[in-house]
Amino acid sequence: MTDVIARDQALALDAADALAPLREQFVLPPGVIYLDGNSLGVLPRSTAARVQQVVTQEWGTDLITSWNKAGWMDLPLRVGDKIGRLVGAGAGQMVVADSTSVNLFKVLSAALSISQAGAPQRQVILSERSNFPTDLYIAEALARERGFELVLAEPEELPGLLDARTAVLMLTHVNYRTGRMHDMAALTHAAHEAGALTVWDLAHSAGAVPVDLQGAEADFAIGCGYKYLNGGPGAPAFVWVHPQHVDRFWQPLAGWIGHAAPFEFTPGYRPAQGISRYLCGTPAVLSLAALECGVDTLLAAEPLGGMAALRHKSLALTRLFAAQVEATCPALKLVSPRDDALRGSQVCLAHADIAYPVVQALIARGVIGDFRAPNILRFGFTPLYLRFVDAWDAAHHLQQVLQSEEWRRPEFNQKNAVT
Amino acid sequence: MTDVIARDQALALDAADALAPLREQFVLPPGVIYLDGNSLGVLPRSTAARVQQVVTQEWGTDLITSWNKAGWMDLPLRVGDKIGRLVGAGAGQMVVADSTSVNLFKVLSAALSISQAGAPQRQVILSERSNFPTDLYIAEALARERGFELVLAEPEELPGLLDARTAVLMLTHVNYRTGRMHDMAALTHAAHEAGALTVWDLAHSAGAVPVDLQGAEADFAIGCGYKYLNGGPGAPAFVWVHPQHVDRFWQPLAGWIGHAAPFEFTPGYRPAQGISRYLCGTPAVLSLAALECGVDTLLAAEPLGGMAALRHKSLALTRLFAAQVEATCPALKLVSPRDDALRGSQVCLAHADIAYPVVQALIARGVIGDFRAPNILRFGFTPLYLRFVDAWDAAHHLQQVLQSEEWRRPEFNQKNAVT
Repeated sequence: MTDVIARDQALALDAADALAPLREQFVLPPGVIYLDGNSLGVLPRSTAARVQQVVTQEWGTDLITSWNKAGWMDLPLRVGDKIGRLVGAGAGQMVVADSTSVNLFKVLSAALSISQAGAPQRQVILSERSNFPTDLYIAEALARERGFELVLAEPEELPGLLDARTAVLMLTHVNYRTGRMHDMAALTHAAHEAGALTVWDLAHSAGAVPVDLQGAEADFAIGCGYKYLNGGPGAPAFVWVHPQHVDRFWQPLAGWIGHAAPFEFTPGYRPAQGISRYLCGTPAVLSLAALECGVDTLLAAEPLGGMAALRHKSLALTRLFAAQVEATCPALKLVSPRDDALRGSQVCLAHADIAYPVVQALIARGVIGDFRAPNILRFGFTPLYLRFVDAWDAAHHLQQVLQSEEWRRPEFNQKNAVT
Repeated sequence: MTDVIARDQALALDAADALAPLREQFVLPPGVIYLDGNSLGVLPRSTAARVQQVVTQEWGTDLITSWNKAGWMDLPLRVGDKIGRLVGAGAGQMVVADSTSVNLFKVLSAALSISQAGAPQRQVILSERSNFPTDLYIAEALARERGFELVLAEPEELPGLLDARTAVLMLTHVNYRTGRMHDMAALTHAAHEAGALTVWDLAHSAGAVPVDLQGAEADFAIGCGYKYLNGGPGAPAFVWVHPQHVDRFWQPLAGWIGHAAPFEFTPGYRPAQGISRYLCGTPAVLSLAALECGVDTLLAAEPLGGMAALRHKSLALTRLFAAQVEATCPALKLVSPRDDALRGSQVCLAHADIAYPVVQALIARGVIGDFRAPNILRFGFTPLYLRFVDAWDAAHHLQQVLQSEEWRRPEFNQKNAVT
């Protein structure tokens, strides 16, 4: 980690930051330092007008003709291609549809069936104990339904647990609570050596860190549209399948939009060739249009160095914030890895007792992070719209909250359903 | 059917129509007679402002606090309750989430498991041969996965096929191609007599015809948000489970929002009590907000007699249109039932050769219906925003298209992907 710096130095870093103009793409509420882009990305400036155009013109005026005329039918592939550029997927290999959980159900079903074909002894889904719960729930449901065993382990135990019984290694690339990032290429290689397939959840990776799905020879991937992709609350999710697997399995959510010829209305299912068979119901047009605006804010960084440049800035931001906090807030324990290579685009801190009220006190000061049970203060750093001075100010506010003990105020100690 | 009338008589019917003011709730493109509300409902006047509020205020300004403050977390149940009022579901019994196809997967999984528990000989899913394809595809996928047999039959054959091997009778209440409506109460009773459960798809019923899920003692129901509910392109769908079944099964799309305590982030799945366990991923907020505006346009009819009054007008509209067409277009065959009790809110006509170009020629005249392969001209009648004179004019245009043979023009004979 870097040393502690003065606020002026942070301002100087901003003045020298070639990515600084990207911030202009967003509507940022005044007085807010938003460190929760890993929960809900902020609103791009283009989204409101684009959604309005879809509602009033494409839907209101052009009605059903927009399925062709406005390209509504193409949205799942078109937005998928754009996200694909951020995570190393080839054109035509990714679609956007449904939720992350639903897409995980599709690809994990596929991975289990393909892995077990001819190898019935492969009965284990291997994952990380602190994987995001919805991933574990979906795996648990599929394991119960289909007679697999879900084995959970710590990150460092994973390579040693890959063996001839492993059907699928299912991991979230960047851990939602700690920000710890797996080595996708190395773990995928290890899984393949053991004869297993990999399913990668990119919820905290897409738009946050460089990902190279094809380069890593990953098998399946899914991810979220409303975090670093800035797609809006509950935005649809994406799904990618390596071309070598894509036509080998009929995923069980065999809805009409994944059919080879949906408008022939034939009674028997015949899956589309390629990734389109991972579609199911009618495309969610409003949400897809909003998500496309969010993804475009990341593609705007391509002339400035793209994900590599964003990663460079993200690491500088998290280093700065972590160093300031460690120097000034001894009560907090850094949970995220110090090693750049292991850290996603977030900084997580732990406090056994007061993590929740400290986060609430920060929110009251306009510094929005979030609490993750049982003891984590989580701060996401989105290099698209965060400045170095924001990281500095956030650390300063955190120090003040702790020193002043304002976290003791009763209103910061009442838990809401969602934080 | 009624006799042919003069245009002035249609205008007189509109003048006497107590539901006429409901039309003011919608943005209708000038010069258009929209008979495709069964494919994509028109835009309610309130939707654009509401969606804009969600985008700019709730998302853009209030960000993650809106999960609580703006009630985003409550949207699936809140909108579900409103739709429930239209189809005879009790409060707290319905949620809105995912697509119709995905929801069918959930409830058919549940129905198969519950039906077969203790009765392993129940291995048949019985459905209608001309059911909407996506329903048959989902059933086919589940049947293959879980060792069931999908048996398809004509409507009149269904009661005789219910027996001790039947696990589930899965039907779409109103047929998408013909508009033929099943007697939900009678078929549900017959299924129960045979020891089977029922799954009803209300895609062409919700907001179109009166439905009484509880009165009919139905077991499971799903339906579409973007047809008669006016929720916008690709709006999320609804799912209902009879309270006696709702806690008996863990549906396989066991995502975190269906968990008993999603924000405890515990690794083991524990389903929520009640219909919330049929949720899966994060609620699609933009789409849910738009759908709520659409549903509200139907609830606005409650003081005027609600679904019973809308049904009365719908039948009068379809009777008028069918009578005019039969009297003036001998080349077309009426496919929808003449019997009011058997007819949904649409009129379908068949022509062996020219159904497609005739529909295109009508669209060019501003009369928007749709073609359904291989030979159907389909016209949906939405009593919320259609006038009697629209029905009269549409029939008149159809007569003119046939008499003038303008359907022969080359541009009407080129098929698009979606019509």
